[in-house]
Amino acid sequence: MLDSIPELRDIILSYNRIKTWTHKTPVMTSSLVNELAGCRVFFKCENFQKTGSFKFRGASNVVLQLPENMSRNGVSTHSSGNHAQALALAANLQGIKSFIVMPENAPDVKRNAVKAYGGNVISCKPGLSSREETLANVTRDTRAFFIHPYNNFDIISGQATSAYEFLCENPSLDSIIAPVGGGGLLSGTCLAAHYLNPRIKVYGAEPAGAPDAFKSLQAGKIIPSEHPNTLADGLLTSLGEKTFPVLRDHLERIILVSDEDIISAMQIIWERMKIIVEPSGAVSFAAMLHERKAFKGSNTGIIISGGNVNISQLPFQTQ
Amino acid sequence: MLDSIPELRDIILSYNRIKTWTHKTPVMTSSLVNELAGCRVFFKCENFQKTGSFKFRGASNVVLQLPENMSRNGVSTHSSGNHAQALALAANLQGIKSFIVMPENAPDVKRNAVKAYGGNVISCKPGLSSREETLANVTRDTRAFFIHPYNNFDIISGQATSAYEFLCENPSLDSIIAPVGGGGLLSGTCLAAHYLNPRIKVYGAEPAGAPDAFKSLQAGKIIPSEHPNTLADGLLTSLGEKTFPVLRDHLERIILVSDEDIISAMQIIWERMKIIVEPSGAVSFAAMLHERKAFKGSNTGIIISGGNVNISQLPFQTQ
Repeated sequence: MLDSIPELRDIILSYNRIKTWTHKTPVMTSSLVNELAGCRVFFKCENFQKTGSFKFRGASNVVLQLPENMSRNGVSTHSSGNHAQALALAANLQGIKSFIVMPENAPDVKRNAVKAYGGNVISCKPGLSSREETLANVTRDTRAFFIHPYNNFDIISGQATSAYEFLCENPSLDSIIAPVGGGGLLSGTCLAAHYLNPRIKVYGAEPAGAPDAFKSLQAGKIIPSEHPNTLADGLLTSLGEKTFPVLRDHLERIILVSDEDIISAMQIIWERMKIIVEPSGAVSFAAMLHERKAFKGSNTGIIISGGNVNISQLPFQTQ
Repeated sequence: MLDSIPELRDIILSYNRIKTWTHKTPVMTSSLVNELAGCRVFFKCENFQKTGSFKFRGASNVVLQLPENMSRNGVSTHSSGNHAQALALAANLQGIKSFIVMPENAPDVKRNAVKAYGGNVISCKPGLSSREETLANVTRDTRAFFIHPYNNFDIISGQATSAYEFLCENPSLDSIIAPVGGGGLLSGTCLAAHYLNPRIKVYGAEPAGAPDAFKSLQAGKIIPSEHPNTLADGLLTSLGEKTFPVLRDHLERIILVSDEDIISAMQIIWERMKIIVEPSGAVSFAAMLHERKAFKGSNTGIIISGGNVNISQLPFQTQ
């Protein structure tokens, strides 16, 4: 397991470790979208990854490295989102138990998805302190191995395999945009791009209603997320001390987008590309459209982070 | 232009004629869907075809064959659906005008799509007689070349290229299911499968609320569609005298499915595959699920015919 920022060889090792368990996700393009965007847009479709998001890469990368004496009591985490499903399946595929702490107000559809992937769901009261306390109790009682959703170098290295695959298939990309919540995907993207082609600019895309990463990079230190307010529910968390320095050193900058921009980008992807992305998964394309001029005429890579959305509760206006 | 049922060489010629203008659509699979279905399911994704449906294949196949003296006054058709958009773009890409007769109560979203692809929309009163009368007037006034949505051997040969591509990529298919409205796609699928591997069984999938093809094959003659009632709005039309004999001679049989089955199949495809299919595009998968036993353990090909759906008016129950 890594105890420092992943090197290129670590990312390649991660890629080779997980590749028989993960999907090589497709890169999609659309001439209509290119016209609309004023550049050539390449969508790396992690919504087609197993469990519907890139999170399965990082979770698999950790689970597949655990020696028997660390995995025999299972793995644990707290998450109400895509990391929960990803860890449940990654563990289950290796015959490892998983204990997932979820707030009691999490939607049934998410709780059931974790259970369907073989996870044990433990409910807690909403709020970070209850989540952490419950997790500490669960981890103490079960002796499960705790796997943080993003503040973990092996998670970062696993998420970096998305950009690694992307750039191996599309070496002509001028820039890549990825969404930022805790920074696992974005820091991995920064590292893969930096190692494979340092001329590629990597941008973060963040909801204006949860701008803690933007503020953190401005301040030069981690500013925690406070009262985030956005429908991009995968991007509410704060940066960690393992992801922040990577962004500080390698990120071009962060582009903030409104929820209206996110819905509009999501609608274009649904209608034009005919693929399902969740709001958090549309944020990077929203950022590209918001700063059209900066990307004009270039080859722009967009990481679509996930596609887990409740299709009976959509943000599109009913006509 | 063909004046009889397409031979294998005609389908190959069609494929080579259109292939630089059309997408080679991907074949997608999902281990979760396979578990659910009890067989290996291969989805041929015509929702990713240009204009969002297989109709672009047939329309392109006709437009690309028109000599200058037949195309100089444009092309015409009546359609409120996918053939309208397909013909508008296929013509536009060759610098040919198109005149599309649409009922005045067609949704704005469909009218605007045809216009966006460069088509001229002519409104008529709802109902077949008004459609045909308006089309006759338009064709007389403009001298445009009329292209029927399905009762045309070159359209059939163009639609056959979907199954041709499908079988070239997946020769191990035991069966293929395609939806049936007027029968252009289904008869083309029957022909391609018959020529490439006569052991493959081809099934038609039809909404129980519009069962005219089912009745026609039972009766041994074309029974027109009367008062169809289904949300699969691409499958309301009657068979034509050019499509019926192909189905009579080569189709295994037709599987009828309820609208509830269609919505449920559509929801599985959206949630599990993360791709957008329209109700008519989900009918073939609904048929497979409805007759699970018949396909158990086999390699089943499902043609997803299209993905043009108004995402602000979805049939999924709001939670």
